[in-house]
Amino acid sequence: MLLYEMAIAPNPRRVRMFLAEKSLLDKVTRVELDLAKGEHRTPEFAQKNPFYRVPVLELDNGSCIAETNAICRYMEDTFTQAPNLMGNDAQEKALVEQWLRWIDFEFMVPLGACFQHCSGYFKAHMNTFPDFGKDCASKVWAFFDFLDNHLEQHEFICADRFTIADINAYVTVQFAKVVDIRIQPRHAHLKAWHDRINSRASAKA
Amino acid sequence: MLLYEMAIAPNPRRVRMFLAEKSLLDKVTRVELDLAKGEHRTPEFAQKNPFYRVPVLELDNGSCIAETNAICRYMEDTFTQAPNLMGNDAQEKALVEQWLRWIDFEFMVPLGACFQHCSGYFKAHMNTFPDFGKDCASKVWAFFDFLDNHLEQHEFICADRFTIADINAYVTVQFAKVVDIRIQPRHAHLKAWHDRINSRASAKA
Repeated sequence: MLLYEMAIAPNPRRVRMFLAEKSLLDKVTRVELDLAKGEHRTPEFAQKNPFYRVPVLELDNGSCIAETNAICRYMEDTFTQAPNLMGNDAQEKALVEQWLRWIDFEFMVPLGACFQHCSGYFKAHMNTFPDFGKDCASKVWAFFDFLDNHLEQHEFICADRFTIADINAYVTVQFAKVVDIRIQPRHAHLKAWHDRINSRASAKA
Repeated sequence: MLLYEMAIAPNPRRVRMFLAEKSLLDKVTRVELDLAKGEHRTPEFAQKNPFYRVPVLELDNGSCIAETNAICRYMEDTFTQAPNLMGNDAQEKALVEQWLRWIDFEFMVPLGACFQHCSGYFKAHMNTFPDFGKDCASKVWAFFDFLDNHLEQHEFICADRFTIADINAYVTVQFAKVVDIRIQPRHAHLKAWHDRINSRASAKA
């Protein structure tokens, strides 16, 4: 299988960390695309993902799966002998999915908007609204506080064990540095959790 | 089970349509909350969903599941005899999830932003940036065009059969009326698909 990615971007990193936890990194051949150079803006890649985003997993039958969580779900369902990261039963699967959506909609979406609208990095490719971006930063800070409060009572994000929710939250916390949002001294529980996840071998994948 | 909702909102409608397709509406007791009156802004509801959103499914054991797709996944995995709407095997499940994410991130997120920042409905509760909202409208129009093009070759959104992706796309197309974005004469394939979905009994749930 081929994994199209840009290694430094957060969503490809989520997939690699997921694969590393499941010892499945050797199942994929990584194909690096330089998004800054527009290497993904080709008619050929549009066939793989009409929204021109990475990661994309290309199966041996030529079918493509876009979107981080869809790729992870495919690997979870295909290699069932590896450690389960997305839930063992109906309730746990729903709980993990709830958390994945909270992390995406309450954390990654405002963080992405903050980066897109404030950093200048995307100015040539889209209309930017810096005041809106700054407003989104306050939501990112709120999610740091929310996570810190939650992690006071929990060793992991959910299900009392390491799951994909820890991966997605951890990578997003790290990505927040691009807009200079970082764990503060008041975030003792978030810091302890971050350091636990950071010490896993998969964090270097 | 209890389903907390505001019936006219799009996400609760997605869940009801999903349950109707699976003949599972009678498994839940619906609890209507008037969000305009702030009936969800209570410490009690914060225990069910710290982000104060509907729908929330409360299980008989008291556990709560927030987020539309997480609720649907719980019902899909729990009532496996009902028609499958989220994929039968690993590849189909991933394909459905990819589409759900495209519909959320490329369609519902910009539509929601357009509604929140342009309609005035949310002015009292959040900072609004109308120019950003108008920019988001162009993404919603682009997704209408994308869907129309896709549906020229496909009877359903994906997997060659009716799935939750049809539900989520259909409800979002209908919700777009709140910002006066509607199917245009140029959208013949989108119109035909919309009318097919609209004629299903579940569309009235």
